[in-house]
Amino acid sequence: MTQKHFTLLTTSGTARAGELHTSHGKVPTPVFLPVGSQATVKTLTPDDIKTLGFDMLLCNTYHLYLRPGIDVIKKMGGLHEFMAWDGAILTDSGGYQVFSLSPLCKITDEGAKFRSHIDGSEHFLTPELAVEYQEALGADIIMVLDECTAYSDKKEKVRRAMERTHRWAERCLKAHKSNKQALYAIVQGGMFPDLRQISAEYLTGLDFPGYAIGGLSVGEPKEITLPLVEQTAALLPEGKPRYLMGVGAPEDLIEGVARGIDIFDCALPTRVARNGALFTRKGRINIRRAAYSKLDKPIDPSCDCYTCRTFSAAYVSHLFRSEELLGLRLATVHNLRFIGNLMKDIRSSILDGFFKAFKEDFLTNYKTTNEQIRVEQKGKWLKGRGKEGT
Amino acid sequence: MTQKHFTLLTTSGTARAGELHTSHGKVPTPVFLPVGSQATVKTLTPDDIKTLGFDMLLCNTYHLYLRPGIDVIKKMGGLHEFMAWDGAILTDSGGYQVFSLSPLCKITDEGAKFRSHIDGSEHFLTPELAVEYQEALGADIIMVLDECTAYSDKKEKVRRAMERTHRWAERCLKAHKSNKQALYAIVQGGMFPDLRQISAEYLTGLDFPGYAIGGLSVGEPKEITLPLVEQTAALLPEGKPRYLMGVGAPEDLIEGVARGIDIFDCALPTRVARNGALFTRKGRINIRRAAYSKLDKPIDPSCDCYTCRTFSAAYVSHLFRSEELLGLRLATVHNLRFIGNLMKDIRSSILDGFFKAFKEDFLTNYKTTNEQIRVEQKGKWLKGRGKEGT
Repeated sequence: MTQKHFTLLTTSGTARAGELHTSHGKVPTPVFLPVGSQATVKTLTPDDIKTLGFDMLLCNTYHLYLRPGIDVIKKMGGLHEFMAWDGAILTDSGGYQVFSLSPLCKITDEGAKFRSHIDGSEHFLTPELAVEYQEALGADIIMVLDECTAYSDKKEKVRRAMERTHRWAERCLKAHKSNKQALYAIVQGGMFPDLRQISAEYLTGLDFPGYAIGGLSVGEPKEITLPLVEQTAALLPEGKPRYLMGVGAPEDLIEGVARGIDIFDCALPTRVARNGALFTRKGRINIRRAAYSKLDKPIDPSCDCYTCRTFSAAYVSHLFRSEELLGLRLATVHNLRFIGNLMKDIRSSILDGFFKAFKEDFLTNYKTTNEQIRVEQKGKWLKGRGKEGT
Repeated sequence: MTQKHFTLLTTSGTARAGELHTSHGKVPTPVFLPVGSQATVKTLTPDDIKTLGFDMLLCNTYHLYLRPGIDVIKKMGGLHEFMAWDGAILTDSGGYQVFSLSPLCKITDEGAKFRSHIDGSEHFLTPELAVEYQEALGADIIMVLDECTAYSDKKEKVRRAMERTHRWAERCLKAHKSNKQALYAIVQGGMFPDLRQISAEYLTGLDFPGYAIGGLSVGEPKEITLPLVEQTAALLPEGKPRYLMGVGAPEDLIEGVARGIDIFDCALPTRVARNGALFTRKGRINIRRAAYSKLDKPIDPSCDCYTCRTFSAAYVSHLFRSEELLGLRLATVHNLRFIGNLMKDIRSSILDGFFKAFKEDFLTNYKTTNEQIRVEQKGKWLKGRGKEGT
């Protein structure tokens, strides 16, 4: 990076407000990135995403490598051009998907051999190729290839994966040619505080412009996640952005910011939207419920999204009960606007020095004992709904 | 109707240009109505439909009666309010769906007993109820209850259904109270020119503000459809609008206008869009085909729709191959814009007196031997894709 990548503007306790500087504009932090795995945030156009107030989104290298292929996107002028998005993009390395989606995955020091979840074809991903693919896609922030471990993995396995992740991080750094992209390292170490410390210290010894915390939110209880986030974030350099991967529930975003995180991504807000679970300041509601089917008021009267400004809860409920595609779109618009507004409010409260009060107020109102959401898994599109974040 | 409902502006041969006057604005004719069966044109918001240039759309009383229920919509302030559409709406009577979708349908002179295709519950629809429901929905144009026959039905059956349709039309006329809505009659008579003549003459003897031609496009070859349209349209009063139900392929629209039709509706443009079949001036293309998957040009370079102005064919192809929901939306936008532009061009050519030349030119370029479209029928949403027009 020739240009300065991140400016820390102020802190409120351990919460931070800053700015990312990318080739596609400035991105205020803390920021949540909507997930557009296959070069599309499901149901939305790039104009919609701009209108919703987002400056950056995440795409998955694994998905785009398999379909339409890195070469196709490169030939189209890169990912921004291909999907007509002129804001910033972060791509992941594909590592997480290789481990979680591939029906077969064999890892050696050289790299990861895997099979496509689409057609079973065999592929090989190395740290060098992960960087090459991401440079070809042309994202503004790219990620090193890392080896992910599961919640239940034993310490020795986690340690070996962490050490490989470190070696791979160095190889990625070496392979990284473009100076238009910021390459982030990923701290691993599973659920083990001592490994997390080793990983954070090792990687911050290398000069990356940003650091991610990976391998969390993989099924472990939140009582474990939050202290690990707190501990790891505290070990990262103050002047560089910190990215907590795969976290996006409203209550987790605010807890993450409280622990010094600047960047989040997660498929949760858009995925649960397509299941009819909508965020309000009082918690998640299930729009399919009978109570909403005759409600002549917006989903959330205080919400300024297109859905709430235009339609009653009864109409949105009708769309879900009738399995109408517009329902998926209106719910996605609502949930993303909710998250976008939440991040803006969080940022203001940090800049104005009352983040702690804002957080307490939000969490008091936001009930995490949410209405039960019936998850439909019948159809083909529906099955596809779960894929984006994994 | 207290207000004048239709103005015939000019003709070019038998083709007509006019204007419908509704409580929700003026609608230039000839006009195509996008189908929004369940109070939504699949994937699109009302703003999208406005942006696409449409002034009127069609909703299905049968679907809305079953879900969310007429009472719910009435309580929400009517259908316009419920779906946030301030343009004009035409509702059908529900007759066609009762015959085609209900797993059981028993018709007597009194009305039609049928079962819901959703939960099997039993219902009874009479001409009076069809009018009452449509008045409660508050559409601008409403339809009489008619008895539809199939392509293969014998003449005696068709004659009996036609005669019942006539009796029902009189009952609808009697039951119709609101003067904000125009109630149209429906000419039946199947594939039999003499019955069509009887039906047209009988119904034009009653004073309806508009006349529809029903019972066509039900599986018969086009060589049969077009002469019947021509014959029937010629029997209808010049000063009243003529509505050909269930017709919407580009080549059929232009042939229908040539035979004096003013209004069309059909689920075809939106349904085939969701199968990846896109209209161009040269005919339908299948966007899934390999040829488009690397094409760095719009679907149709001469098209001014959002999809073509924003994305390459390769991107839209990628969305379909990846089963992404945005693909359904972008394809719907494209096909509706194509049809909307076609109707505008047709109208201009009538107003300027060169419709015949325009028609010949269009049909010479538009290949009806279209690329083969692979119809997916696997998922639940996909199954839902076929329902809207039936």
